[in-house]
Amino acid sequence: MTIYITYETMKSEFARILANLGFSERKADLCSEIFAVNSLDGIYSHGVNRFPTFITYIKNGYVKPEAEPGLIKSLGSLEQWNGNLGPGPLNGLFATERAMELALKSGIGMVAIGNTNHWMRGGTYGWKAARKGFAFIGWTNTEANMPAWGAKDFRIGNNPLVFAVPFGKEAIVLDFAMSQFSYGKLEKYQLDGKSTPYPGGFNKDGKLTSVPGEIISTRRALPIGYWKGSGLSLMLDIMASVVAGGLSTYEISKQGAEYSLSQVFIAISLENLANRERIEAALNDIIKNFKESDPAEPGIEIRFPGENVVNTREENRKNGIPVNNGIWETILAL
Amino acid sequence: MTIYITYETMKSEFARILANLGFSERKADLCSEIFAVNSLDGIYSHGVNRFPTFITYIKNGYVKPEAEPGLIKSLGSLEQWNGNLGPGPLNGLFATERAMELALKSGIGMVAIGNTNHWMRGGTYGWKAARKGFAFIGWTNTEANMPAWGAKDFRIGNNPLVFAVPFGKEAIVLDFAMSQFSYGKLEKYQLDGKSTPYPGGFNKDGKLTSVPGEIISTRRALPIGYWKGSGLSLMLDIMASVVAGGLSTYEISKQGAEYSLSQVFIAISLENLANRERIEAALNDIIKNFKESDPAEPGIEIRFPGENVVNTREENRKNGIPVNNGIWETILAL
Repeated sequence: MTIYITYETMKSEFARILANLGFSERKADLCSEIFAVNSLDGIYSHGVNRFPTFITYIKNGYVKPEAEPGLIKSLGSLEQWNGNLGPGPLNGLFATERAMELALKSGIGMVAIGNTNHWMRGGTYGWKAARKGFAFIGWTNTEANMPAWGAKDFRIGNNPLVFAVPFGKEAIVLDFAMSQFSYGKLEKYQLDGKSTPYPGGFNKDGKLTSVPGEIISTRRALPIGYWKGSGLSLMLDIMASVVAGGLSTYEISKQGAEYSLSQVFIAISLENLANRERIEAALNDIIKNFKESDPAEPGIEIRFPGENVVNTREENRKNGIPVNNGIWETILAL
Repeated sequence: MTIYITYETMKSEFARILANLGFSERKADLCSEIFAVNSLDGIYSHGVNRFPTFITYIKNGYVKPEAEPGLIKSLGSLEQWNGNLGPGPLNGLFATERAMELALKSGIGMVAIGNTNHWMRGGTYGWKAARKGFAFIGWTNTEANMPAWGAKDFRIGNNPLVFAVPFGKEAIVLDFAMSQFSYGKLEKYQLDGKSTPYPGGFNKDGKLTSVPGEIISTRRALPIGYWKGSGLSLMLDIMASVVAGGLSTYEISKQGAEYSLSQVFIAISLENLANRERIEAALNDIIKNFKESDPAEPGIEIRFPGENVVNTREENRKNGIPVNNGIWETILAL
């Protein structure tokens, strides 16, 4: 059963639970806001639905509530940080803000952070930076959860990648994983008795399939763009772990639990660019042209990345955030 | 008929032609080297096979042989440059070198260049930076050559994206376009009477197809990862054109010829990182683990991006570079 919870109620429940686990008032507030906003924006998998797992990770000691990131080395516009196993969303916010500070000084700022934790929704950091007027590129590695192209055992991560730019009062935010469909999505399709809308992996005969159960059983989910997404996953993992001096997907996977990840946060300051006055008009033209695409089927609306989020946000603000009754009861009991 | 041309002969033929078109000795040497190395590395489509088109662009005035890039604005670690319609490969080399200089000073350097031209093979700049010890991220926009997801007319570019890192004496270099297969590849499959190895676009009924002729006729080539590659193409175009202050895919396409592109070159200095001594060992572990993947079918070798290039390079160095007889005669007559 789906129930509807207001943003305020959800956030204060999260904050109550985090405070009980040793989060300071400020950190409980920040962290509960991230989980509640992700839910408000419709990214339930990395909001309310993920909250109980986040709590388990804290209880297991993988996530340290009061740990603060520590500077390892500054090279000027690039800094290496140790996340000290602090909460991923708090470390992620910190790294985004630090990258923006660096970008204000010299145009671009990059923070590479190792020994951090799952950042939940990558879009959080893209929206944050873009709303302050920065372009943003960021990514995280993960445990191995996908086979390399041509292989059948998990050796690469789905390593979500985020690109964001300011757009009027909102933003254009692309937040995507290197797997075509997450296991969460595949299980949802299976539960609903549906096929994936396009092939999402291989069946036991090594053929592409849209039957979610077949992909779940072979565990050969498709990287985006076949060999291209496999290569991109590898490069993102290498860059994050090498520059941060943190663990790679290979090393994370050896731990048996997904913690101590490596992440990259790059902010680009648009404020002082030579063509500042041109930016808004040029961007409007790009989006206008994009949206005026001739739809393949009548009635299809061509949407830019993040466009739906704004609508969902308004709807959930009005009607409450839809939550599975069981999940909400689990949370209330935490 | 395929003939085999030595690297040296190919390079000196290119240099002769470029010198006749007003390239200085230094620029003819640099530019002919890029086209010849791309061919040596097996990227014929952006080497010898593309050279006649490059010459046509010069003759049509889209590419200005002696134009030099000019600094528009420096923000410190981020610089905006005007390519002044100079040769794409020379502007690309310049921007890569400049990004590396900036990275040496403060860890990361970014050059955004507008009003430049087709960079030919993106890998050129990745290999260049990685061989000097830098991690590299770069991309270019293009004219519109692909429909946005859900659409049927060309509104987005295939916008190649490059990631590179040093690896021993060589490099790991990922160089890929946002379209699953280029039109060049589709035409080759069609000519050879073959299907694409995986679905590469839509047929007239809006279904995924592996028949190259069907894709060529609908012009609905597939973005990598379906909607994900469509979104990534849009973001790369926005970032390059906005930060460079150059033309977007939309604006380029209005010109009727593909010139005055926008590109981004980001170099990251690995030399002064805190974990410098760990980098090589960690990278070796990542690649070893990747290559030890369990192949989906016996005999498949799991290869990292750029691994094949090194083999092709050695082979072409030994046997000569394979060239279509007709293309070579066209070049000799230039």
